[in-house]
Amino acid sequence: MNDARHVSEISFEGEVGIVRHHDFLCEEEFYFESGSVLPAFQLRYETYGKLNESRDNAILICHALSGDHHCAGVYSLNDRKTGWWNQMVGPGKPIDTNRFFVICSNCLGGCQGSTGPTSIDPKTGQAYRLSFPLPSIRDMVAAQSRLIDFLGIQKLCCVVGGSMGGMQALQWAIDFPDRVESVLALATTPRQNNQAIAFNAVGRAAILQDPEWREGQYAPGEGPDVGLSVARMMAHITYLSDEGLDKKFSRVRRLLNSDQTIEEIEFEVESYLRYQGDAFVNRFDPITYIYFTKALDRFDLYGENGILEEAFADVTARTLVVGFTSDWLFPPEQNRRIAAAMLRAGKNASYAEVDMKYGHDSFLIDSPELSRLICNFLQES
Amino acid sequence: MNDARHVSEISFEGEVGIVRHHDFLCEEEFYFESGSVLPAFQLRYETYGKLNESRDNAILICHALSGDHHCAGVYSLNDRKTGWWNQMVGPGKPIDTNRFFVICSNCLGGCQGSTGPTSIDPKTGQAYRLSFPLPSIRDMVAAQSRLIDFLGIQKLCCVVGGSMGGMQALQWAIDFPDRVESVLALATTPRQNNQAIAFNAVGRAAILQDPEWREGQYAPGEGPDVGLSVARMMAHITYLSDEGLDKKFSRVRRLLNSDQTIEEIEFEVESYLRYQGDAFVNRFDPITYIYFTKALDRFDLYGENGILEEAFADVTARTLVVGFTSDWLFPPEQNRRIAAAMLRAGKNASYAEVDMKYGHDSFLIDSPELSRLICNFLQES
Repeated sequence: MNDARHVSEISFEGEVGIVRHHDFLCEEEFYFESGSVLPAFQLRYETYGKLNESRDNAILICHALSGDHHCAGVYSLNDRKTGWWNQMVGPGKPIDTNRFFVICSNCLGGCQGSTGPTSIDPKTGQAYRLSFPLPSIRDMVAAQSRLIDFLGIQKLCCVVGGSMGGMQALQWAIDFPDRVESVLALATTPRQNNQAIAFNAVGRAAILQDPEWREGQYAPGEGPDVGLSVARMMAHITYLSDEGLDKKFSRVRRLLNSDQTIEEIEFEVESYLRYQGDAFVNRFDPITYIYFTKALDRFDLYGENGILEEAFADVTARTLVVGFTSDWLFPPEQNRRIAAAMLRAGKNASYAEVDMKYGHDSFLIDSPELSRLICNFLQES
Repeated sequence: MNDARHVSEISFEGEVGIVRHHDFLCEEEFYFESGSVLPAFQLRYETYGKLNESRDNAILICHALSGDHHCAGVYSLNDRKTGWWNQMVGPGKPIDTNRFFVICSNCLGGCQGSTGPTSIDPKTGQAYRLSFPLPSIRDMVAAQSRLIDFLGIQKLCCVVGGSMGGMQALQWAIDFPDRVESVLALATTPRQNNQAIAFNAVGRAAILQDPEWREGQYAPGEGPDVGLSVARMMAHITYLSDEGLDKKFSRVRRLLNSDQTIEEIEFEVESYLRYQGDAFVNRFDPITYIYFTKALDRFDLYGENGILEEAFADVTARTLVVGFTSDWLFPPEQNRRIAAAMLRAGKNASYAEVDMKYGHDSFLIDSPELSRLICNFLQES
């Protein structure tokens, strides 16, 4: 590909080995499923480990709604926070970077370095905002495929992802059957139920009805912070389990006196959610949030005929789908249905259910059982 | 009681018999649990059926967070909407007004005619707003007891309620053991778990962070409409079950074309929630919403020792607690614990679980099984 190149590269060697942080610029036109076109796009991505000579040891990790390309390691010794899947990715870890070359890119439409609504439209010199096309899960995967082309990788050894990342992993196996050896999809769904759509819809309503929304034309540093924060607080509840919350907070009150005003925070869980909401506003773009939740809501592998196995007709990848007992956002049953439909379609698929208490976010939490499962699955690669 | 009187009374005879709509004014001081005092208060209430001569056929119905005193019948022949428990209350219905005298009052602190934050403070001539004391479930019950005094009723034949109404029914049995013959508590909890508190906290955050909140000093006709609407939309999801939503909406999209903007409503469930949010803003006060969710969050029958049966030590009422299989806000287990603790305390209590698909709101839905259960329970009165 002559029209793709690296525009920047930094790296840092830490506990997980070298974290390589790149910007990949694809200067070819990119066509969205909707017919919209971008003249060019950039994906920010990280790599860990080394691509071997036969270029057949690459694993692509796809991130969830609020995730990004930084899935492991740190950028400096002062970095308190590691990447979001640090316990899973690194030398000797389940996704073993001594053996695999691991790639994780910020999704197209994202706000962490990949081209998205906050990027500058070369035609106008202004940020795209709402003129940026709404990406589907398929579009995200198509953009990633350009990066994989650029890296000279014909076939990925595995595509891995949880939640929205799991949707991408499945879409990879569907759209690029010759380029995916195996798929590991965690805490995901072939399509969301109405409850999950409803929560996303309320999150979007909170942003769109915020007076600071201004049809997406808010000034830099301004914007629908309240709406985005409320959307995130609410969504955060759906990522956790009732039992997990009760273990974490045991209904503790921070303050309890009669002088307390109703505007003060009373319960620990309330304080925790406020913090989550405020922190999110500092790192996430409201338009990307709306776009990604729309991509989730529209994702539907059942298709027009409502027959899930038809989606998997061309899949060749060996597939493991993992559901989590306490996940009520994308419940075990929805994960199980994916594997069952693949089996009905005659594919090499299996389903595992992990008994973890942390709700939808269980896939992000360190667990010996989950680690062993992933480790064993990748051993066969 | 010399200091209590009716200030208004209207009545309409319809399908459920005569709906009598009253305002009861108590001109005695009212002390809140917190120590705050009101010089006087009013409760708006309705009655159905007739109080018998021995005054022992009265049933008090307590409403839920967003409910009110209008639990059955209509106000005119043009009224399209009946009271919120119309299928349960009326002549020949499970709460049979041929036999019982039924009372339902808007809670203290409410916004449907009872004294609350929107009422005029006689000291200032202005609405109380945040200077209105935050009522507890116990305060709501204490205010109702004044109304029951005024009606000349020494002992209630039954106190009935679902959700926040169920908390009140239990509190009645605890605070007035000599005045409650039986208790019927539906879809309720001895205390909320962190998840339920978290949803309420996000709803409050949406209101309190709305720029139109203005510390509660918004002009009449203005106010944090966006925040209240978002709070209601989110809460509404928690009142319904996943399965119920899927049956109702089957993931239908209203619009599906590429010209659609992200601000347009795409899914039926999204449209339904928007409607619910908008309608709520027109009938509910944001401060009452904050107050009532606080009352829910603070309700805790486990007390300081964390021993539920201690709360029921003085209870004499025959009690039936009803949980609903699909209720994930106040799950069956939490309802069962109430009856179990009462039994441990040596009380006359039982628990029934009704298999209904409508989530927390199941208690509001017509069901032969629920009707039979309530009918049988009241037969013994």
